[in-house]
Amino acid sequence: MNKTKPPATPGNIHTKSVDLPTDTGRRKALLAGLGAAGGAAAAGLMTPSRALADPANLPPNVADWSKVLGPGVDVAPYGMPSKFEKTVIRRYVDWLTATPESSINFTPLYALDGMVTPNGLCFERHHGGVAEVIPDDYRLMIHGMVDRPLVFTYQDLKRFPPQSRFYFLECAANGGMEWRGAQLNGVQFTHGMVHCVQYTGVPLRTLLEEAGVKPKAKWLLVEGGDSAGMNRSLPLDKALDDCMVVYSMNGERLRAEQGYPIRLVVPGFEGNMWVKWLRRIEVGDGAWMAREETSKYTDLMPDGRARRFTWEMDAKSVITSPCPELPCKQKGPQVIKGIAWSGRGKIARVDVTVDGGRNWHQARLEDPVLPKCLTRFYLDGWSWDGNPAYLQSRAIDETGYVQPEMAALQAVRGVNSIYHNNAIQTWRINPTGEVENVRLA
Amino acid sequence: MNKTKPPATPGNIHTKSVDLPTDTGRRKALLAGLGAAGGAAAAGLMTPSRALADPANLPPNVADWSKVLGPGVDVAPYGMPSKFEKTVIRRYVDWLTATPESSINFTPLYALDGMVTPNGLCFERHHGGVAEVIPDDYRLMIHGMVDRPLVFTYQDLKRFPPQSRFYFLECAANGGMEWRGAQLNGVQFTHGMVHCVQYTGVPLRTLLEEAGVKPKAKWLLVEGGDSAGMNRSLPLDKALDDCMVVYSMNGERLRAEQGYPIRLVVPGFEGNMWVKWLRRIEVGDGAWMAREETSKYTDLMPDGRARRFTWEMDAKSVITSPCPELPCKQKGPQVIKGIAWSGRGKIARVDVTVDGGRNWHQARLEDPVLPKCLTRFYLDGWSWDGNPAYLQSRAIDETGYVQPEMAALQAVRGVNSIYHNNAIQTWRINPTGEVENVRLA
Repeated sequence: MNKTKPPATPGNIHTKSVDLPTDTGRRKALLAGLGAAGGAAAAGLMTPSRALADPANLPPNVADWSKVLGPGVDVAPYGMPSKFEKTVIRRYVDWLTATPESSINFTPLYALDGMVTPNGLCFERHHGGVAEVIPDDYRLMIHGMVDRPLVFTYQDLKRFPPQSRFYFLECAANGGMEWRGAQLNGVQFTHGMVHCVQYTGVPLRTLLEEAGVKPKAKWLLVEGGDSAGMNRSLPLDKALDDCMVVYSMNGERLRAEQGYPIRLVVPGFEGNMWVKWLRRIEVGDGAWMAREETSKYTDLMPDGRARRFTWEMDAKSVITSPCPELPCKQKGPQVIKGIAWSGRGKIARVDVTVDGGRNWHQARLEDPVLPKCLTRFYLDGWSWDGNPAYLQSRAIDETGYVQPEMAALQAVRGVNSIYHNNAIQTWRINPTGEVENVRLA
Repeated sequence: MNKTKPPATPGNIHTKSVDLPTDTGRRKALLAGLGAAGGAAAAGLMTPSRALADPANLPPNVADWSKVLGPGVDVAPYGMPSKFEKTVIRRYVDWLTATPESSINFTPLYALDGMVTPNGLCFERHHGGVAEVIPDDYRLMIHGMVDRPLVFTYQDLKRFPPQSRFYFLECAANGGMEWRGAQLNGVQFTHGMVHCVQYTGVPLRTLLEEAGVKPKAKWLLVEGGDSAGMNRSLPLDKALDDCMVVYSMNGERLRAEQGYPIRLVVPGFEGNMWVKWLRRIEVGDGAWMAREETSKYTDLMPDGRARRFTWEMDAKSVITSPCPELPCKQKGPQVIKGIAWSGRGKIARVDVTVDGGRNWHQARLEDPVLPKCLTRFYLDGWSWDGNPAYLQSRAIDETGYVQPEMAALQAVRGVNSIYHNNAIQTWRINPTGEVENVRLA
């Protein structure tokens, strides 16, 4: 990974550490609009409107587009976003990898609301490009330590009793470029290897029960049909717990780049294990120690040893507005928005600070809060006074785990890994309103 | 509406009534696979798989696409569905209306799973085409019986504390062509004027509180910026309860055809009131008796009088698989899938019959079950024996309201209205496996 060339897409490199100012008096004023622990907005702060001199003076939208007969229902059988939203796309950083076929693009988190990621904006990570699997020719084999080796067609899989679940999917390397400092100036690039959709398919348990897993079996090898033949070892316990073999995302069939026609869903675990174009499941009594769980997707520690099988994604959060892509356009009321998630269950609480961690305010969580799913949070009552501010969010999940500061994480993990960075992210609002990715010293 | 010309899209016209066969013995056999009240599938019924003669005989997907390096992450900045899914689109019936600018297209319900409708497949209903509103020029005016008339820009609206909610949106005329018999052979056409997404925006209550509603006010006029200047009267109580002024659907900004940049969300009420390209809200003390609530969107009764202000969408459901678009390809286990919704709250229960209503079986509901939202249901344990079957679903909402049979609905409402048909739908499975839209006599 070459970090010396600039990215071709928006987002300059910053390796900047900053010291917090010591003027706590100003800082107190900055927080005047906030209650002790967040909560509802004070109505008086929320008046981004203006009185009309004359109510009969209709707004300008009467004048123009209301006089034109627009396009009809025959224009777009499959609809696309408004032409005014054409910058809201997945973005690719061309210096990051040797080829686009083994690379990543990033979800535009700054432009999104709620918990659903639209399918067209779900980030991609391929190891050998997108396989073009013809659904009629698709097969899934289950073999190894089973009573009956089986092959399923695509139509076979669709005939089992289905279930639908909302889950986040995060690449283990999300934020990986930030371990050695604040490097990418945009939440799309620092955190955009995560998305959240509603999946529909069959519990993997159902298929394994059809095949009959032998008593001594402990592991699965799950393998994809792409040119990389992506494979990973998966503990049988997890497979029998909540894994799914899915054909739909957000109601419609999987997108090609997400594994059409069939992918594995491994809730809460790192995205690399959610094998796309799933073609084979071998049942065995030990892990396979495949490439992607030994030389890759292990965490190199300061002492030169590596953590392995670090599947579960620790609790994490990030502020998506304001952020480098969404500067503060004026002083006064600002809603701070963000997302939080945990591979271990539900998000229990999110705290937000505007002074680099000196004071924390409990954020409002949007319902429904679902396990292993994105949770949207807001801090409503903050008014920006035009001075520098240091925004952070901190997720706490239902197990009690608290998202760590980067210094605490590095004290244990060092800076050698590119995986499993779930540190608290800092955005600095400059007096101009611009927002920078910084590392607090 | 000319019903004599055939539709240009798939879905032939049937005006067929059928009598149920009297062979109850066969019917009992048909239901042998079903428990007393639905529930989990019997494992033995669910074996749509075959044993492999030789597990080393890898499935064919190893041979072809696995040997080709597929497209990379630079191909589609905004992704589209797989090329193998190109028939899954919104469809337009060109004989239904005079022009496509004042018309309808239909959501392909047969192809969807879960509760989320992808934005590109959400049905459209326009009265004067799609307005092309430039976001920077957008204005929303609130005036009339208020303390302070106000105008909001698009950016103003985005600065208020947001909320996200999943809601269904159904056109009052959904199923309207079925009042006089089983006419359209496809669930896309009989029920496809409904979709369900997660909306994000501002509670309308917040904006009204900013303007200060005068004590004697009782109604709003809500008006769109399209060439039809679509407007409707909305009771103030509903506006203050759960209405929203939204800018996002399923995480991203509204699609142009869904009101970009701002539409009104009126949960549980007929879709016509969810004004798109919302430009003006006038506060008053009486209804405006506008065109769309007098000559249209009222229900002509048998005695020549009309029901008016029939806003709330009664509980309804439909089986989306099998259906005319998804015939039964083989005998044996079939999962019956469908959707249910109610404008009055949550779905409490869905029952399914395979013998035209003689026996009902409680369906499995998919979590989360949310108010005024689509709920997915399944009946897992049915095995089709190849004889004719008559499939129906019946929704019951949390108020205790039970979806009626068509005969019961017609006894009260007659057949003169094109609105608010929430009758139980019947699909007949023919011995060939084809599925027909029929009306039980």
